[in-house]
Amino acid sequence: MKYLQDLHDGDRISDIYLIKHKQSAVTKNGKPYENVILQDKTGTMDAKIWEPNSAGIGDFDALDYVEIVGDVSSYNGQLQVSVKRARLCHEGEYNPADYLPVSSKDIPTMYNELLGLINSVNNKYLKYVLEDLFVKDEKFIKQFKYSSAAKAVHHGFVGGLLEHTLSVAKLCDFFSKQYPKLNRDLLITAAICHDIGKTKELSAFPQNDYTDEGQFIGHIVIGVEMVDKIIDQIPDFPPFLAAELRHCILSHHGELEFGSPKKPAIMEAVALNFADNTDAKMETFTELLNSTTETGWLGFNRLLDSNLIRTREE
Amino acid sequence: MKYLQDLHDGDRISDIYLIKHKQSAVTKNGKPYENVILQDKTGTMDAKIWEPNSAGIGDFDALDYVEIVGDVSSYNGQLQVSVKRARLCHEGEYNPADYLPVSSKDIPTMYNELLGLINSVNNKYLKYVLEDLFVKDEKFIKQFKYSSAAKAVHHGFVGGLLEHTLSVAKLCDFFSKQYPKLNRDLLITAAICHDIGKTKELSAFPQNDYTDEGQFIGHIVIGVEMVDKIIDQIPDFPPFLAAELRHCILSHHGELEFGSPKKPAIMEAVALNFADNTDAKMETFTELLNSTTETGWLGFNRLLDSNLIRTREE
Amino acid sequence: MKYLQDLHDGDRISDIYLIKHKQSAVTKNGKPYENVILQDKTGTMDAKIWEPNSAGIGDFDALDYVEIVGDVSSYNGQLQVSVKRARLCHEGEYNPADYLPVSSKDIPTMYNELLGLINSVNNKYLKYVLEDLFVKDEKFIKQFKYSSAAKAVHHGFVGGLLEHTLSVAKLCDFFSKQYPKLNRDLLITAAICHDIGKTKELSAFPQNDYTDEGQFIGHIVIGVEMVDKIIDQIPDFPPFLAAELRHCILSHHGELEFGSPKKPAIMEAVALNFADNTDAKMETFTELLNSTTETGWLGFNRLLDSNLIRTREE
Amino acid sequence: MKYLQDLHDGDRISDIYLIKHKQSAVTKNGKPYENVILQDKTGTMDAKIWEPNSAGIGDFDALDYVEIVGDVSSYNGQLQVSVKRARLCHEGEYNPADYLPVSSKDIPTMYNELLGLINSVNNKYLKYVLEDLFVKDEKFIKQFKYSSAAKAVHHGFVGGLLEHTLSVAKLCDFFSKQYPKLNRDLLITAAICHDIGKTKELSAFPQNDYTDEGQFIGHIVIGVEMVDKIIDQIPDFPPFLAAELRHCILSHHGELEFGSPKKPAIMEAVALNFADNTDAKMETFTELLNSTTETGWLGFNRLLDSNLIRTREE
Amino acid sequence: MKYLQDLHDGDRISDIYLIKHKQSAVTKNGKPYENVILQDKTGTMDAKIWEPNSAGIGDFDALDYVEIVGDVSSYNGQLQVSVKRARLCHEGEYNPADYLPVSSKDIPTMYNELLGLINSVNNKYLKYVLEDLFVKDEKFIKQFKYSSAAKAVHHGFVGGLLEHTLSVAKLCDFFSKQYPKLNRDLLITAAICHDIGKTKELSAFPQNDYTDEGQFIGHIVIGVEMVDKIIDQIPDFPPFLAAELRHCILSHHGELEFGSPKKPAIMEAVALNFADNTDAKMETFTELLNSTTETGWLGFNRLLDSNLIRTREE
Amino acid sequence: MKYLQDLHDGDRISDIYLIKHKQSAVTKNGKPYENVILQDKTGTMDAKIWEPNSAGIGDFDALDYVEIVGDVSSYNGQLQVSVKRARLCHEGEYNPADYLPVSSKDIPTMYNELLGLINSVNNKYLKYVLEDLFVKDEKFIKQFKYSSAAKAVHHGFVGGLLEHTLSVAKLCDFFSKQYPKLNRDLLITAAICHDIGKTKELSAFPQNDYTDEGQFIGHIVIGVEMVDKIIDQIPDFPPFLAAELRHCILSHHGELEFGSPKKPAIMEAVALNFADNTDAKMETFTELLNSTTETGWLGFNRLLDSNLIRTREE
Repeated sequence: MKYLQDLHDGDRISDIYLIKHKQSAVTKNGKPYENVILQDKTGTMDAKIWEPNSAGIGDFDALDYVEIVGDVSSYNGQLQVSVKRARLCHEGEYNPADYLPVSSKDIPTMYNELLGLINSVNNKYLKYVLEDLFVKDEKFIKQFKYSSAAKAVHHGFVGGLLEHTLSVAKLCDFFSKQYPKLNRDLLITAAICHDIGKTKELSAFPQNDYTDEGQFIGHIVIGVEMVDKIIDQIPDFPPFLAAELRHCILSHHGELEFGSPKKPAIMEAVALNFADNTDAKMETFTELLNSTTETGWLGFNRLLDSNLIRTREE
Repeated sequence: MKYLQDLHDGDRISDIYLIKHKQSAVTKNGKPYENVILQDKTGTMDAKIWEPNSAGIGDFDALDYVEIVGDVSSYNGQLQVSVKRARLCHEGEYNPADYLPVSSKDIPTMYNELLGLINSVNNKYLKYVLEDLFVKDEKFIKQFKYSSAAKAVHHGFVGGLLEHTLSVAKLCDFFSKQYPKLNRDLLITAAICHDIGKTKELSAFPQNDYTDEGQFIGHIVIGVEMVDKIIDQIPDFPPFLAAELRHCILSHHGELEFGSPKKPAIMEAVALNFADNTDAKMETFTELLNSTTETGWLGFNRLLDSNLIRTREE
Repeated sequence: MKYLQDLHDGDRISDIYLIKHKQSAVTKNGKPYENVILQDKTGTMDAKIWEPNSAGIGDFDALDYVEIVGDVSSYNGQLQVSVKRARLCHEGEYNPADYLPVSSKDIPTMYNELLGLINSVNNKYLKYVLEDLFVKDEKFIKQFKYSSAAKAVHHGFVGGLLEHTLSVAKLCDFFSKQYPKLNRDLLITAAICHDIGKTKELSAFPQNDYTDEGQFIGHIVIGVEMVDKIIDQIPDFPPFLAAELRHCILSHHGELEFGSPKKPAIMEAVALNFADNTDAKMETFTELLNSTTETGWLGFNRLLDSNLIRTREE
Repeated sequence: MKYLQDLHDGDRISDIYLIKHKQSAVTKNGKPYENVILQDKTGTMDAKIWEPNSAGIGDFDALDYVEIVGDVSSYNGQLQVSVKRARLCHEGEYNPADYLPVSSKDIPTMYNELLGLINSVNNKYLKYVLEDLFVKDEKFIKQFKYSSAAKAVHHGFVGGLLEHTLSVAKLCDFFSKQYPKLNRDLLITAAICHDIGKTKELSAFPQNDYTDEGQFIGHIVIGVEMVDKIIDQIPDFPPFLAAELRHCILSHHGELEFGSPKKPAIMEAVALNFADNTDAKMETFTELLNSTTETGWLGFNRLLDSNLIRTREE
Repeated sequence: MKYLQDLHDGDRISDIYLIKHKQSAVTKNGKPYENVILQDKTGTMDAKIWEPNSAGIGDFDALDYVEIVGDVSSYNGQLQVSVKRARLCHEGEYNPADYLPVSSKDIPTMYNELLGLINSVNNKYLKYVLEDLFVKDEKFIKQFKYSSAAKAVHHGFVGGLLEHTLSVAKLCDFFSKQYPKLNRDLLITAAICHDIGKTKELSAFPQNDYTDEGQFIGHIVIGVEMVDKIIDQIPDFPPFLAAELRHCILSHHGELEFGSPKKPAIMEAVALNFADNTDAKMETFTELLNSTTETGWLGFNRLLDSNLIRTREE
Repeated sequence: MKYLQDLHDGDRISDIYLIKHKQSAVTKNGKPYENVILQDKTGTMDAKIWEPNSAGIGDFDALDYVEIVGDVSSYNGQLQVSVKRARLCHEGEYNPADYLPVSSKDIPTMYNELLGLINSVNNKYLKYVLEDLFVKDEKFIKQFKYSSAAKAVHHGFVGGLLEHTLSVAKLCDFFSKQYPKLNRDLLITAAICHDIGKTKELSAFPQNDYTDEGQFIGHIVIGVEMVDKIIDQIPDFPPFLAAELRHCILSHHGELEFGSPKKPAIMEAVALNFADNTDAKMETFTELLNSTTETGWLGFNRLLDSNLIRTREE
């Protein structure tokens, strides 16, 4: 398969791509055409179907896998495909893993590590919450494993939510050894649950875009509500412990202006905020360094709020 | 009855007061005594029981109504009661209304006005939510009617939450006439529900203090969860409408740094934020003017962030 | 008449347009040409006169109404007119209302409503100020009726200043019923005068751009000075009342960083700030919804500082 | 005369003091008394008249000069005078200069320097404005010479406004030599007029407190209005020059959050803002160093926003 | 020995205390006396020597150990010692460890752990820097071991700088395992050196106060200069590596407004900032919990910028 | 010589230009070419060598002076040179002054003025520091004279650092006359040294870009270290004076968020901050006015944070 990032002006393509987006349009002179965005795991490319109703242009929709025959040319400094033929493919003709960005780490292995941490939680109430989601709820488990942790920014790939969650939980595990005042059970539970709302804030791949609920409510409050519903089913769940766990999730962004309606009030909430922030920034920097071979100054990075450069010997 | 605000240095009192607070202490020389705070609707006053185990000092606790005999004296510029005798009273000996700050407006009348507004909502889903709380839920209705809207700040009295909610809803009613793009049903519903979480954020009078859940989660998210649970019980509640209503409650403080984890995204959310803020500031200013007869500059007010003065002819 | 917003690539036009702007220029190869901006009430369009001195291109200036014959083509993704013939028109050949954005509400009707509110003011000093401007000063009345309330942003059309002023005054009228501590006469007077400085901050339509005085001084201070001069002519105007009225105008933006050199210090000033801000935001949202049929997320709006969306059932 | 700053616990006084403030009060036991504040140029001291109606206590008011006989004692760590006798004095018995803080520089000499600068302005319109105020307006000249530049902060003494104005004008004079793009006439005029509104923002000594107009409007806008009225009387005053001069005054605080409703837009406005700010901070630091002999760290200073220390060799 | 925190009103003391501070003063009536502050490891207490020249009051200075005989009484709500006799003690009469707050961890053990980390650094240039300070420089080693990490705030005790440095280095060690892009040698070196400037910013115990150089320059820039001087002595030290190490120290506060003149630009600088901040906040919270047995809300904490509470089961 | 700013579409050039930048690239179709930036003192222009290996294209590198023969054409609205021939030139064929922006003032004259100010410093320690740099250090003197004060912003030309330093020192000289508390020797020394770190923060012309050390450490801390090393060589340099001088340099940006890790703590540091800021803003405004003949509003200027306009009569 010829990946999108390897195409040049003048190439002819004849391969299967994922259709990320499709929209009908009309030229300034009134002629109908189709705007299409092709996607594979190396990126996306605009494509135009100038004769949508001609022979050879089959019916298909966004999120279909379609065999595209067309010519690559440069327009306004961007490559673009002029589609000559398009055929809807069926499962088996393609390997979905070729079409989506995926974690560089093995998803089942990471999930097993996460289950190991869940197993190490002693408090029966907290363990119940974790098992209800991560052991018993098949639909949630599937979503969680394949979800990204973000639309863009960092961990924006299949398995990204799992990779981020595991990394945060391991940092919290280390913190709980270094700072004995921390309640390890509460901290590990909160770490594992802190971003579960992202399974509803973002739609599944290949879309991976904000849902209406994500825009209106946000993953922090969605996550608190999800935990709340589980707690409601557990008889005698200690109400103060429930409030502590919900609070850790609610306050994990650390500041009101970052979307947490409460500032961390207990030590575990403070620790979780640091673990989350540390992992986000470390991964952002790692992804930036992986995306380029530049050794000079990389320019201002909005997330790290600084002009960055690669350390000479990593 | 002799109200606390009318006492002077040298007075002897012999009246029933509400015990707001009671704590055992030890003098620097090791003698045990009791710190007590007396309350009536005009304010509070410190009291000391220097001989807690002597005859005439009965057993009582915080939130009891107790007949106090004692002497008023000035200590460090503050009046203080030295308690000579204390007797626990039983219901009927006192009128609770003498002991708590109460709205100057009639609570049943205000509640009827609120029911009138509820009745004017046409959308059946929204009306169900309102009726489930304000018509059917006896426990909630009782809490809501007697709750304050704040610990201090504004509307900090019995009936304050009702008075504020009604006022906000009436402003929203007027807005929906003046701005036809507003969805009146959604706006009125959101206005009436916007502060219901305060029934759990603050404990009941006479305490009227933040609960643990109030501190950890806050009335905004508590309120969203309350509405959520009702919506879950309504078959076919349109999910987009549910998200809109929850969003209005979630965003009603208008800014992330004021504790709303999302900024208003629909016109009704913007309108609700203005109605809430306008009523809060108008009431704050009104309470300030009612609390003094000063006609000169009143000094810097933290809530209105300005040095204030009474308009010459109100 | 063919409106600018309905033109397409390839159209030939032959209609009268308002000349918003005209400037001579020279191509990179030294040939003189004219840059022109055509305007009608649906928008503006760039036009070029490539042969300014040829036959058929008459003499005209910015703000003239000119009959244009030319061809529409697309350049860098924007439509542009290549002007072949241009003839200066005289009054009577065109209807000015076709060329400017105008309030959707009737201007005389709105002005009558405003006069009704002026009539309801009882304080003789304040009424004198209002009548001196809005009843006696013909030149001011004409400017006020046709002025916009902004260059862009909201109420940026003929009659916009009147529409905004009336709406703010009606909100204040409602506030004065709901909050009895408010001095209605002062509040209504301040509401009606709060933006009179805009008649000098912005030049008249079709320009509707900041004047030098507008840039250097701003409508807030200009408005205070206008009121000041009227007050100076009124014998025995109570100085404290004068200071209150000037203060309400001066502080109506509510915050120093929004251009009010003083924060609101009296209750009427606080109320006016809320009314002004509420109306500005409600109208901004309304204009946004009217400008599109999009039902999905509309993207980040700078004025409302949020990603916005249309409520599903307005 | 025994100055207030030299009194000790146990002293008896018998001297003439200025009465800064006088207010009737009632003890907690219902006995009327008088709170009085005595002032001389070294500071102020609280005094009590416990028997206001007894023989020997004459009639007097705030701002009178009164011979006080009384005893100094310490109360809550502060010295206080218990007044035994009080006699209203008449002019001639005292020297006002003993009772007010005064500039250490000679007022007539400074005023002559200012007139020299006025004389050096060539533009006839600007010179007219300056002469109208500083040469012709006797009442203004008298106020200006004796006014302070602030209630507290810096230059808070008789002649302070003149001293600050002259210093700012001299800095601007130097700037206009160093930066030839500056219009010296405009800059000198703006410098001399920049704080004239302070003659109305603050009441005269010995009160030296904010007036109602000062609180409601502020010296910046008051000053613009004062200049405005003079310009109105000058035929053919160029309107752009008028706007530039008013703008310099309006913007001289440099930032909206410091009370200037417009940011400096011309080079002279930028220069004036620096001159004003430089002189304010240099004088603040000078007054601080003069007020103490401490050579170690002086603690955090709010105006200079730093922990300060005296340079080892000044 | 009777510790200061155990004294009560009315006690007589006769024990050796460290003199933290001593200053001559004069009563309001002109009598000389001495203000003294006594210190032991449990805190400090004011003391007065009312008859400084009487028999029994020996000569001593601040930072001496002195046997004090005196009476404890309460003054303005604070305990105070009235000193009757004072005798200068000599080494051997007292145990310094009784007089200073000390790390709860063993200093030699911690130092050995630090040396272990230093030993694990492979880069010869970086190792040279570390060994030059932490192995060869006896004077520095002594200062470093006994220095606090702060005047107040957190780690404000003997050994605090070592404890904080070790903890930060261990976090960085963990980070370098979790994030393989990190250059472990650079990160560990930067972690161990990040606060070495504190040995000059703060004076030694018992003073533990800011030095003039600390106030004027600050530990961040002092630390960079210290490292700079060592690097200058190392032939062929790679200049880019030198800049990276100095940059990590310079930027370790993370934000300009926290005193770092540069934002972190390399991944190790970002990681060090998180490690430093995490350890500071965890220790702050731990010290707060250790200082009280309160289980309710602890009130607003300035450093953690939140109202805090103890987790129910630590 | 034909300057770059005078070229038009269609011109053929045949002149010597400085090569600011040169980089090999590959077209989308795989053909190698060279991106080159030409520079002279009027600006820069992109150039392309489409046939890098053809006859007539000699070998050259960035910062060489090269005779270019080529054709000017317009591409995406920018002029661009298509290079036909390129020949490396040797010294003597060109005048470097034609290729770099240079101060409009005479460099030797300015340097003499600076030496005069150095000569006026009386304190022997401070004079030693100044002479060590500005009289004895030939390499530094050469760098200092030809360095710019900025990459862009203001004083971004050969001699700019000298021009700015002299101007700041003269302002400080004037301040020390007007404010007698200022220590003139310290202030003049700090003014002359305040930006010496810029000789290392920016590379020499024609590059004039941030060095790695400039990015990692910044001119403020670099300058402090340079002064530090000189002070270390002076026996008996008073340590408090050393701290004062280093502090003035360290704090001269005035605010932490502007990159000074300490706020000004002594009066000279406050004065230096004002002098530096005043000169920067005056020069920025002057350069802006010199760069255009526009008399209307110039639009928002980021450095002066305002919409600017030329004063009518400069």
